Amino acid sequence: MIGNNWLWNMVNNIPFLRGFIMKKVYTMRSDMIDSPPTYENEHPYITLDANYNVSFYTRTLPPVPVECPTPMGVAGKKILPDVDVLVNKLFIREKFKPEPIGTSALFSFFAQHFTHQFFKTDIKRGPQYQWGGHGVDMTHVYGKNKHDENLLRSFKDGKLKVQTVNGEEWPPLSKDAQVEMKYIMPVPEDSKYALGHSFFGNLPGLFMYASIWMREHNRVCDVMKKEHPEWDDERLYQTGKLILLGRQQIVIEDYVQHLSNYNFKLLFDPSLLFGEPFQYQNRIALEFNHLYHWHPLMPDDFTIGGVNYTMKDFLVNPKLVIKHGMATFVDSLSKQNAGAFTVRNHGKYTLNVVKELIKHGRTLRLQPLNNYRKRFNLKPFKSFEELTGNKWLAKELENFYGDIEAVEFYVGLITEKRRPKAVFGEAIVEMGGPYSVKGLMANPICSPKYWKPSTFGGSVGFDIVNTATIEKLFCQNIKEDCPVVSFKVPGFVEEPEKPEDQHGEL
Amino acid sequence: MIGNNWLWNMVNNIPFLRGFIMKKVYTMRSDMIDSPPTYENEHPYITLDANYNVSFYTRTLPPVPVECPTPMGVAGKKILPDVDVLVNKLFIREKFKPEPIGTSALFSFFAQHFTHQFFKTDIKRGPQYQWGGHGVDMTHVYGKNKHDENLLRSFKDGKLKVQTVNGEEWPPLSKDAQVEMKYIMPVPEDSKYALGHSFFGNLPGLFMYASIWMREHNRVCDVMKKEHPEWDDERLYQTGKLILLGRQQIVIEDYVQHLSNYNFKLLFDPSLLFGEPFQYQNRIALEFNHLYHWHPLMPDDFTIGGVNYTMKDFLVNPKLVIKHGMATFVDSLSKQNAGAFTVRNHGKYTLNVVKELIKHGRTLRLQPLNNYRKRFNLKPFKSFEELTGNKWLAKELENFYGDIEAVEFYVGLITEKRRPKAVFGEAIVEMGGPYSVKGLMANPICSPKYWKPSTFGGSVGFDIVNTATIEKLFCQNIKEDCPVVSFKVPGFVEEPEKPEDQHGEL
Repeated sequence: MIGNNWLWNMVNNIPFLRGFIMKKVYTMRSDMIDSPPTYENEHPYITLDANYNVSFYTRTLPPVPVECPTPMGVAGKKILPDVDVLVNKLFIREKFKPEPIGTSALFSFFAQHFTHQFFKTDIKRGPQYQWGGHGVDMTHVYGKNKHDENLLRSFKDGKLKVQTVNGEEWPPLSKDAQVEMKYIMPVPEDSKYALGHSFFGNLPGLFMYASIWMREHNRVCDVMKKEHPEWDDERLYQTGKLILLGRQQIVIEDYVQHLSNYNFKLLFDPSLLFGEPFQYQNRIALEFNHLYHWHPLMPDDFTIGGVNYTMKDFLVNPKLVIKHGMATFVDSLSKQNAGAFTVRNHGKYTLNVVKELIKHGRTLRLQPLNNYRKRFNLKPFKSFEELTGNKWLAKELENFYGDIEAVEFYVGLITEKRRPKAVFGEAIVEMGGPYSVKGLMANPICSPKYWKPSTFGGSVGFDIVNTATIEKLFCQNIKEDCPVVSFKVPGFVEEPEKPEDQHGEL
Repeated sequence: MIGNNWLWNMVNNIPFLRGFIMKKVYTMRSDMIDSPPTYENEHPYITLDANYNVSFYTRTLPPVPVECPTPMGVAGKKILPDVDVLVNKLFIREKFKPEPIGTSALFSFFAQHFTHQFFKTDIKRGPQYQWGGHGVDMTHVYGKNKHDENLLRSFKDGKLKVQTVNGEEWPPLSKDAQVEMKYIMPVPEDSKYALGHSFFGNLPGLFMYASIWMREHNRVCDVMKKEHPEWDDERLYQTGKLILLGRQQIVIEDYVQHLSNYNFKLLFDPSLLFGEPFQYQNRIALEFNHLYHWHPLMPDDFTIGGVNYTMKDFLVNPKLVIKHGMATFVDSLSKQNAGAFTVRNHGKYTLNVVKELIKHGRTLRLQPLNNYRKRFNLKPFKSFEELTGNKWLAKELENFYGDIEAVEFYVGLITEKRRPKAVFGEAIVEMGGPYSVKGLMANPICSPKYWKPSTFGGSVGFDIVNTATIEKLFCQNIKEDCPVVSFKVPGFVEEPEKPEDQHGEL
């Protein structure tokens, strides 16, 4: 979908054509995903557990049967490469490689914030378990259950609890809303904030998104109260949740547009699926979780309001956002180049994550990348060079795996050559697309009984939903002048594509 | 659908016509049910909780808003009739009224056994809560969760634990499989059996069904082991579950056929819905639970193998089934007339159930019967006489409620005139039908990725599913000659219908 700009301009400006194409995108993408779900992590055949056990991630492909001759099925070596050796050779970042199409850190934190609402591995029980609701349910804003929701609510005019610092509204301190938060290292009490997701106190970028959605909820409650002065706190709160969920769905337009880098202008319109045999249910797949491990996008340091911070300064330091203020923070993240999703670009704080990920893939007997390519209608790679587009990398992988049919899932995804002018290689987009489209459109608010003005407090609320953008989300909730809000670093100039260089300097 | 037997014979014998009609039955019925669910018990407007809070029963109609002028909305009195007075006048059984189309006690216990897998009120939390899986998931046979399942499994050849008494196989004693069982009165240790559902030790009829499904599972495992000698215990067990679920779905054909008393021969064929915009998800509605309170079907006493037992003898006495043996027990229940679903026919042990039910309906602010009639495309009744078909009953109801628009849900269902040649009045069938069809067809095994031979261990297993009948279920699991297995008392002759007599002698 690259090139032919005049053609895309035409298509994008003819609503009927744009709707027609978008409907095809919805149905073709979501048809790739089994719904109801078919497999789980413990049986290489269909069981009732696949449907009824919602504490499992689902599986798009069943695990490699234990009786198979090699860990990846029939191909490859009897023993998989040592994870430490693999990570040292292929994952460790020596020199930061910037994201080559200018993706900003605002984008990468959006990805992290958004996806944490449904990627919730229950690691104590095991890597096959999860504790989420299998979809876009806004639990990352409102809390994981009713108990937590009640702790975060002010019970006045539908609003969430806030505190004011430096003339801006921020989430309350943990002492004022005692939801459980989890930190990766010790944190002083006055830096502990009560957020919808227990992880979001660990990074300022996540805290920033948590704060802006909190403000947005309270802003929407004000609008609704003006519309419906007779509504009580409960109705304002519940309607606020519905509007925010709708808004978040729309914001995804901006996000997926950047991610896919399509010339075709994507459209979020649930009514395109009305009457189609589309299942309004979703189950988060283990494979979707694995492929969404985009840690190379995290840079090593950040410039916020002209001050440089290393990742170490950033960790468990949400106060940075308050210190610089929302406007400066979002402006700075918009201008900050994310890292490239490629080999040898995992920063040191994320190395352990990728090690664990590869180990989990083995424990749960994920099938090799080529099997997933076939499952998603992509041609399986015939050689390591075809996979990587790079001779050195091909050689290394061949040493590790011996057979192209035995390349592990995540290792394959990250070593795959990048698509021209895109953030990722083909497999991530062609697998991630179906999972994402299915997850977004299967949301109950997209179903015919929900997707209408009355669900969102009338036409005013429905309009808030339908006109959302990432820029509005910030600018409607910042008193000062609107800062730069962009998933792409402004003025970024892409380097011309070089063959044999889809992984940057190796 | 009464009369014109030659026409029905023709339709029933032309597969294309039968399939066409059945598809219409599926789609028209299930289209009546909102899926994803829209309402729950605590808000008279759409909220996200309606979808995400699975511990709630869903609601087809939202609760009457608290700000309404009367408990039923706008019509009727400010105060609803006293429940004790209502029950004493309209529900208490003075003389047993037999079910007028010859429904057997085998039918009523089937209904109770089958529906308890999904009607699971979590009464400690409140009448709006439930602890089930919202559908036909076989938890009443295999246990409510994996922990219980493991306690009931033998872990050999896929089979469930059994004990042999009098040369027949029965469920193990509780000491040998320690799943939690709940009894309505004290029970000696040697009468405590380990069953899939905690309530099923309370009535011999439920214990009988529990035992026959247990035998069927183990029989199916034997068949599968012969087909697949290489399969391990786990695969035999999981496939057995799938086959039993399929079998149960098919047995429902017999059950619904009797219930509806249609001349049209019903058909269970999930493939008729492939490609239709049908949602393979289900949520049990509070209203479905209420309308399935069929306690009048329970007689006051039972004749088993020529011996008479009162209900008191029956309660918490599963040993009766073992004593008489499976063949005699099922034969006797087949010949035992159930009670009529009508007013003044609740036996004394069930009076408290109906009192609580009516109270729950009030606590949860169920809308009046006429609103449900409209919701399910039935004409609302214009008068009490039109509702009841009986002058005395009409007068009593008018005294209680004042306005036909204010008749409570369950009271309305039981006072509604019976359809000619049918077990129930119109509202129960026209509401129960959609809930049932939706619940059955929305099962994951009916979806295209599941409904094929490989899911059920190949063509032999799929054939076991597709040729199921209630008679086979028993006779394939009884060593002796096949007893009478019937949802209708053999040789029963219906009395000619009399106008003004749809409730029997009042």
